[in-house]
Amino acid sequence: MGVKVYGATMSTCTARVLLCLEEMGAEYELVPIDFSTGEHKQPAHLARNPFGQVPAFEDGALILYESRAIARYILRKYKSSGGDLLKEGSLEESAMVDLWLEVESQQFNPAIGPIFYQIFIFPRFGNVPDQAVIDTNLEKLCKVLDVYEARLSKTKYLAGDFFSLADLSHVPLLHYFMATPHASVVNSRPHVKAWWEGVSSRPACKKVTAAMPASA
Amino acid sequence: MGVKVYGATMSTCTARVLLCLEEMGAEYELVPIDFSTGEHKQPAHLARNPFGQVPAFEDGALILYESRAIARYILRKYKSSGGDLLKEGSLEESAMVDLWLEVESQQFNPAIGPIFYQIFIFPRFGNVPDQAVIDTNLEKLCKVLDVYEARLSKTKYLAGDFFSLADLSHVPLLHYFMATPHASVVNSRPHVKAWWEGVSSRPACKKVTAAMPASA
Ligand SMILES: N[C@@H](CCC(=O)N[C@@H](CS)C(=O)NCC(=O)O)C(=O)O
Ligand SMILES: N[C@@H](CCC(=O)N[C@@H](CS)C(=O)NCC(=O)O)C(=O)O
Repeated sequence: MGVKVYGATMSTCTARVLLCLEEMGAEYELVPIDFSTGEHKQPAHLARNPFGQVPAFEDGALILYESRAIARYILRKYKSSGGDLLKEGSLEESAMVDLWLEVESQQFNPAIGPIFYQIFIFPRFGNVPDQAVIDTNLEKLCKVLDVYEARLSKTKYLAGDFFSLADLSHVPLLHYFMATPHASVVNSRPHVKAWWEGVSSRPACKKVTAAMPASA
Repeated sequence: MGVKVYGATMSTCTARVLLCLEEMGAEYELVPIDFSTGEHKQPAHLARNPFGQVPAFEDGALILYESRAIARYILRKYKSSGGDLLKEGSLEESAMVDLWLEVESQQFNPAIGPIFYQIFIFPRFGNVPDQAVIDTNLEKLCKVLDVYEARLSKTKYLAGDFFSLADLSHVPLLHYFMATPHASVVNSRPHVKAWWEGVSSRPACKKVTAAMPASA
């Protein structure tokens, strides 16, 4: 029996989990959670994720939440058939995967996340994007991307010359971001641009992002 | 030769790394970085951490940053002598460690972090803490602690009936928080209170927090 993901294809955190499953070639079922009816805040979903968010994940009796933790679980579980995206067998390589996954979560996400919300989420609720918030965070994002440009001029992927969860974890928000006029901050950095082209053209990425319409 | 930590004992992110080293009984040297002279933004430190933050970590030729990534490296490296705080040998247990470490970083930290800044950092620069920011984040923190209370009524520690990095990672900010009048939100939740008493009385925690004077 395959595993279950409770979430929504459009949700970036759900997509992080789906990307791992697709990369591993794992069988899974996506159980849609309807935000418009507040299903994510109702008892059945709170029993899966007490923070009332998506994704939640079910593998038999095991229930998990927090996309990056689910990602690690999936990559460990299917490693022998799907490939090694955590490199836990090497002290040095796994440290670099962990480092760049933390950079994604602690530096990249706090900058790109608010831009995504302003451009893609606020308008759905009839709000006008706040340009000042976008500008401040674009500035932060550019500083982060300068660090990426320096790194990617030395190694093909973030953690080294191998593709890993650290790269994959950037896909959901970058996918949306690349559909905005601000994509130029990626495209003007040649190594970041080449990295993104490589990562986003992987079959798993193409498949998952195809279900994430990015109409800003 | 021991490893090196570049940072400051007062810094919560540095403390996360020191806690791991102390738990593992590892030999290390703490190299102080002087924030008052902006040492963390100067080339020598940027070469260690391009984001200009502490901590940075050096083990021979390997240089790391991001406290939670450094923590994992230390716990893997010294596991055989210091004990197993990641449980990577078990798919289920490591998933629970990862999950609660993500909860710390994604849910707990964003709520307690701003309270810490308002009460401990702002006054150092002559600013008056903003009570509205404290109140909003206290409300968020209480919701997070409700989830913890439910969890800790079932298991002794966050990831299960074993002490792990997930528990340890909460120590630095909780240590400061418990010296504020808001400590009551921990003490009024019996299982969270008992958990904190257990974790904070560990020798490693006592040693590291002794160097973190919490005078609000
Ligand atoms: N840190 C969590 C964040 C989860 C999250 O923010 N999910 C969003 C969708 S991408 C959500 O459920 N938002 C609704 C809410 O927070 O009420 C993770 O990585 O899984
Ligand atoms: N996500 C980083 C955060 C590091 C961080 O915020 N460090 C603080 C001290 S606790 C710092 O260096 N602040 C100075 C700055 O950001 O300029 C980690 O976990 O190591």
